[in-house]
Amino acid sequence: MQQSTELSLDPADWEEFSRIAHDALEASIKHIRTASKTPWRTLPKSARDDIHRPLPHAPGDLEEIVERVKKSILPFPTGNAHPRFWGWVMGNGTPAAMLADMMASAMNPHVGGYDQSASAVEGQVIDWCIEMMGYPAAASGLLVSGGTMANLTGLTVARYVKAGFDIRSRGLSGGPRLRVYGSTETHAWAEKCCELLGLGREGFRRVAADSQGRVDLGALREAVKEDRRRGDRPICIVGNAGTVDIGAIDDLDRLADVCRDEELWFHVDGAFGALANLSPSLQGRLKGLQRSDSLAFDLHKWGYLPYEIGCALVRDHKAHLSTFRSHPTYLQSQGRGIQPQPLEFADLGIQLSRGFRALKVWVSLQTYGTDTIGRVIEQNVGQAQYLATRIEAEPRLELMAPVALNIVCFRFHAPGVAEGPLEAINQEILVRLQEDGVAVPSSTRRNGSFALRVAITNHRSRQSDFDILVDAVLSYGEALMDHEH
Amino acid sequence: MQQSTELSLDPADWEEFSRIAHDALEASIKHIRTASKTPWRTLPKSARDDIHRPLPHAPGDLEEIVERVKKSILPFPTGNAHPRFWGWVMGNGTPAAMLADMMASAMNPHVGGYDQSASAVEGQVIDWCIEMMGYPAAASGLLVSGGTMANLTGLTVARYVKAGFDIRSRGLSGGPRLRVYGSTETHAWAEKCCELLGLGREGFRRVAADSQGRVDLGALREAVKEDRRRGDRPICIVGNAGTVDIGAIDDLDRLADVCRDEELWFHVDGAFGALANLSPSLQGRLKGLQRSDSLAFDLHKWGYLPYEIGCALVRDHKAHLSTFRSHPTYLQSQGRGIQPQPLEFADLGIQLSRGFRALKVWVSLQTYGTDTIGRVIEQNVGQAQYLATRIEAEPRLELMAPVALNIVCFRFHAPGVAEGPLEAINQEILVRLQEDGVAVPSSTRRNGSFALRVAITNHRSRQSDFDILVDAVLSYGEALMDHEH
Repeated sequence: MQQSTELSLDPADWEEFSRIAHDALEASIKHIRTASKTPWRTLPKSARDDIHRPLPHAPGDLEEIVERVKKSILPFPTGNAHPRFWGWVMGNGTPAAMLADMMASAMNPHVGGYDQSASAVEGQVIDWCIEMMGYPAAASGLLVSGGTMANLTGLTVARYVKAGFDIRSRGLSGGPRLRVYGSTETHAWAEKCCELLGLGREGFRRVAADSQGRVDLGALREAVKEDRRRGDRPICIVGNAGTVDIGAIDDLDRLADVCRDEELWFHVDGAFGALANLSPSLQGRLKGLQRSDSLAFDLHKWGYLPYEIGCALVRDHKAHLSTFRSHPTYLQSQGRGIQPQPLEFADLGIQLSRGFRALKVWVSLQTYGTDTIGRVIEQNVGQAQYLATRIEAEPRLELMAPVALNIVCFRFHAPGVAEGPLEAINQEILVRLQEDGVAVPSSTRRNGSFALRVAITNHRSRQSDFDILVDAVLSYGEALMDHEH
Repeated sequence: MQQSTELSLDPADWEEFSRIAHDALEASIKHIRTASKTPWRTLPKSARDDIHRPLPHAPGDLEEIVERVKKSILPFPTGNAHPRFWGWVMGNGTPAAMLADMMASAMNPHVGGYDQSASAVEGQVIDWCIEMMGYPAAASGLLVSGGTMANLTGLTVARYVKAGFDIRSRGLSGGPRLRVYGSTETHAWAEKCCELLGLGREGFRRVAADSQGRVDLGALREAVKEDRRRGDRPICIVGNAGTVDIGAIDDLDRLADVCRDEELWFHVDGAFGALANLSPSLQGRLKGLQRSDSLAFDLHKWGYLPYEIGCALVRDHKAHLSTFRSHPTYLQSQGRGIQPQPLEFADLGIQLSRGFRALKVWVSLQTYGTDTIGRVIEQNVGQAQYLATRIEAEPRLELMAPVALNIVCFRFHAPGVAEGPLEAINQEILVRLQEDGVAVPSSTRRNGSFALRVAITNHRSRQSDFDILVDAVLSYGEALMDHEH
């Protein structure tokens, strides 16, 4: 009998599976609940050996595998759930979102479109994102893996609309050189995406920023004119709502004017900064955001959600659709049944198969409420101000950039010490903070000098955590100075 | 006191959260366990109304929100967990992977690189994928959202290596027209990716396939020659390991010869078909796969895992890295601490922030074992053969394409009925199968005619499910014929 030997990947014993799953859930909740006690630390050899296994040909014991996750994986995270993790720009994740991710994985829908609940959820989430950002209700949007994909989506629409020839058919060869503009403070996604899109790294022209890290509008207009004179074709200006190094916000309203005057696409990278729009007291800094043609932001940064969740909004729905829509025969709609219309989300981006990342947004926004999220964002901005105040009050600390939003760049400083030794001391301070499990800032360079960089998109940080940081930097710095002499 | 008013997004009452989370887990397990009783069905207005809510400004009650997920979201899935879902190419998901997704979300690491467990897990999973596909141990790879991104990754490396000029700096404008080749049966990702990469839709040249759906090698060589004569620059040939319409497998070994002779990059799209390499009895059909320069495949298709999980492998690690690596100042490594080296995974693809999709692979492969997965794949191939046999035995059913692997294209047929009415009848059969919750095939066109398309990447399908399908198609078809007369 064929029937009797048929296999599936469902457990033979559901009760046993359920017991193991509830135990894994307990471990997951405990992991989040004790995040404050789980700083980053080096992955030890024992854990690495537990992770590295030969290719498993035979089935294994799920309970034993889960035990290894608990013993060798959960205890050695990136550290971004911890209240003193301020490296790069990472969110903490939230308990409610974990619960949603679990249900989304159990359900495992394909959210390319289709007549189903998951597509209705993503549609609702996009409408909420549109409202949160003050975009027109007729705009379109797509949930994507993160900021780079969201920015890529906006830039691809810009290229389609502004190229001036049938770029989808012909491609770029034989056409004029297309150019995109942004300040020197723009995140490296800009070059990465311009390379991918075939514009080349040189297709992204970085123009000067002022002392506050905002794009110099005069220099920008001049660059556009110069390129036009040369025969290149300017297509898009990228405005920054929160630069990666120091959190500067370009004058978005005036950038929108420039784009209108020059007939350029106005894309805003609001990877983390756009979320400040949820705070009535911070909203004003983003004036002009809602005039952009496309906007990219992450919910896994200042929306505090777990990875991967970014959002691309495009003001002109038709342009968005025209950029990506594709009609292969195996995707033809029958007008009824499971696919009563073309795949609405697959037609707005590069992915065809799409998971249910929308559920964690739907659950989280309803659980926490956008007002609360806005207040936690304000709290982070207040913490950055507090840290800056403490730094300015300490003679041995030096603020390395203005604090526009939630990022603080500073260093340990001692009069009479040359730049070389100062840099060595601050690099050593950085790795000791990390290795001792005190805190995780990352670093950057400002005006040629090495700086500790504290980016606060953390709902678990308390004011006292910044006192711990300041005290530790001073203490490491003094010790290193003593050692130096 | 500032302290007392500080907010976080952690629950005030962890015990209550834990109770709700365990309840949500029960609902999730029940959802998977009863997948056989949850076919696709239309999303009713009541559920849609429950999903569509005004932007939530105030916090809500998590328990009530989870109840709405249970009532209005879980019961209306895509349907791909069901044993008679054979539309497009979707996997079912597995219970063990759900458990892993839950733990990954709780942990929420940033898997761009860093000294942490999650990066060690992804490194291990990539090594397993390399071994599973017979790639050399020194190859590199990356987990991505799915087939399109995996194919895009391979094609981007191809473009970088074969363009013949500094494409990362200069872009495509001013250079020769770059061309990529594949058969007419190639999936639409090819045009979508060529458009994104700036090669244009015309940059992908579709060449004839034989009656079995395999690329015509003579026509391919001729197309390459013709383009060279015209001054275009051929860069890459895409081989199909499982075409989307009928599951055909190109002669990969001879394609590898052509690529060697013509000095072209050999990319294989093995979105679902490459996984057949896990079966000793099917492996032979993929001969030459391991000679490719890059390979894309999905684990959320024939690996049965939940979305989103694809994999890109690249034989030449250095070329892979050179295509994407970027060195902004805020990502500089200190040689110690949390980031002792450049971000290894971010440097192999377009995303910088990356989630922990590797965990579900690590857990699932160990739980089920690759031998078992290979046997379930064989079972699906056997089911396709069984269905084809049943179709050929029924005078009123017509096989519309050879069955090379796991896809069966057929239609209801009656002598003397013209193509127009036949098409209408088969379209009606398709939507009735879906709307009545019997089964979900999708459709395509073969030789101009509408065909029901059954793609079997389903670990829950039983042989008896195909009998149900055949009986239903015959029954709907006869009824529609009666109605016609």
